[in-house]
Amino acid sequence: MPFDTVAIVGVGLIGGSIGLALKERRLVRTVVGIGRSAASLRLAKRRGAIDRGTTQVARGVADADLIVICTPVDSIPDRIVEASASCTSQAILTDTGSTKAQIVYGVERHLRDRRTFVGSHPLAGSEKSGVAASRADLFDGRVCVVTETERTARRPLAIVTQFWRSLGSRVLRMEPEAHDEALAYTSHLPHLVAAALSILLPEEYKEVVATGFRDTTRIAASDPDLWSAIFLDNAEPMLQALGGYERVLGEFRQALKARDGQRIKRLWSRSYAKRRHLDRTGENGEGD
Amino acid sequence: MPFDTVAIVGVGLIGGSIGLALKERRLVRTVVGIGRSAASLRLAKRRGAIDRGTTQVARGVADADLIVICTPVDSIPDRIVEASASCTSQAILTDTGSTKAQIVYGVERHLRDRRTFVGSHPLAGSEKSGVAASRADLFDGRVCVVTETERTARRPLAIVTQFWRSLGSRVLRMEPEAHDEALAYTSHLPHLVAAALSILLPEEYKEVVATGFRDTTRIAASDPDLWSAIFLDNAEPMLQALGGYERVLGEFRQALKARDGQRIKRLWSRSYAKRRHLDRTGENGEGD
Repeated sequence: MPFDTVAIVGVGLIGGSIGLALKERRLVRTVVGIGRSAASLRLAKRRGAIDRGTTQVARGVADADLIVICTPVDSIPDRIVEASASCTSQAILTDTGSTKAQIVYGVERHLRDRRTFVGSHPLAGSEKSGVAASRADLFDGRVCVVTETERTARRPLAIVTQFWRSLGSRVLRMEPEAHDEALAYTSHLPHLVAAALSILLPEEYKEVVATGFRDTTRIAASDPDLWSAIFLDNAEPMLQALGGYERVLGEFRQALKARDGQRIKRLWSRSYAKRRHLDRTGENGEGD
Repeated sequence: MPFDTVAIVGVGLIGGSIGLALKERRLVRTVVGIGRSAASLRLAKRRGAIDRGTTQVARGVADADLIVICTPVDSIPDRIVEASASCTSQAILTDTGSTKAQIVYGVERHLRDRRTFVGSHPLAGSEKSGVAASRADLFDGRVCVVTETERTARRPLAIVTQFWRSLGSRVLRMEPEAHDEALAYTSHLPHLVAAALSILLPEEYKEVVATGFRDTTRIAASDPDLWSAIFLDNAEPMLQALGGYERVLGEFRQALKARDGQRIKRLWSRSYAKRRHLDRTGENGEGD
């Protein structure tokens, strides 16, 4: 087995799915779950996502070869520093946060031994949360970004890359800033756009909501704590993306005001071509 | 059987699904399909959506009790006037357009006998189009808006209402303007929002597109001709909705600029509560 003991800090949708995948693929002898709630650790154990659970980070990480921090982005740096103070010198640490620059550079500034940490972001998830929603195949066929900075050491980079590959993911290596700029467009702005639509919907129109509205706003039901932390972490790239978005909305507004059918159609043709192209290049394996 | 002959003008996704549903539920003896392309009429016949097809409106509607116009919104008024010139005086006409004021008032101004027409809009559809995508259960459990104006006559209103109910839909009666204002928020603005996201996506970020982006932009792959006609028809209500939407985006922008985590979280909490509520009140039966 590639790992003897893997410690998962934060056993929710992502942490629980990592545990399930590790056990199902027989990649580890023992999965230790570290969480704040004994009840959710018991649920994780019943689901087979962890072998044992503890609410104490220091105890949970003591024997681990690999420590995966799956908490909300605003608590990841603290949990990494905390875990690194109690683990062996051979242990490797990674995280699963949806933002990378704040986490990776924050950790590089504060970690006792920088050579043990590499950042990750598996592009998998759901508007659902909690270990009850976890699935052994959550990472299978998905992309996982693994970060590389000038301070990243070879051994943890290789081990963390192999870890995600062993769960079925395709690993892309990116610098933290490049990750955050890209994700602002591909994930964080779409969440903002969906949330704004959900907020705007007048109560009295709910009866005439159609499938298109439901799809477009599905992620508007994402966890407010998780997502406000992500927005705060990645505010600057998101403001850039939002500025570009408002310009495209402005193009539609001008065309509508002018009742210019040709301009509206040109905008629709661009949308259609780009979205169809995305379907054809769906090597990311998504769409459940 | 409630109908002897139903004529469907425009045998695409919606028209084809009406034909399939009528036949499967044994509500009609004969379905006549009227289309511009002999090839797609042959396909509709092979799929069992129509019994016979013709490219001539006058011939197709001659024997019909009910005529359903399922063409793009910008050609519906002309097709209704054309059909009404060739049908019997007992025939009832309706349409399936996604906008209602332009169509209904346009028809009321030009129709030989106004007492024969009532507007409809089944809230069902897909980003797919064409008879190949049609399904017998497309309207089952969905809402269908049937319009009522001061000129609407009782008999066609009752027949068209019963028609949609017999396909499994829940009928809501609305004035055309009220329909268009509501649909601007629940369907047309979501399409604009999704199209703008699709247009904005930088080519180089395609590799890190996640499920959220795909869901949020699914309707960005809708047919450009159909949707530019809908936008043009409903420009004024859409501009109103877009103005409100841009104000909500502005609230997010201000909160992001100020790095105000509490404000961001309050916005997310509103989005979450409203979107969850929509799921719990999913009596519209959607979500395939």
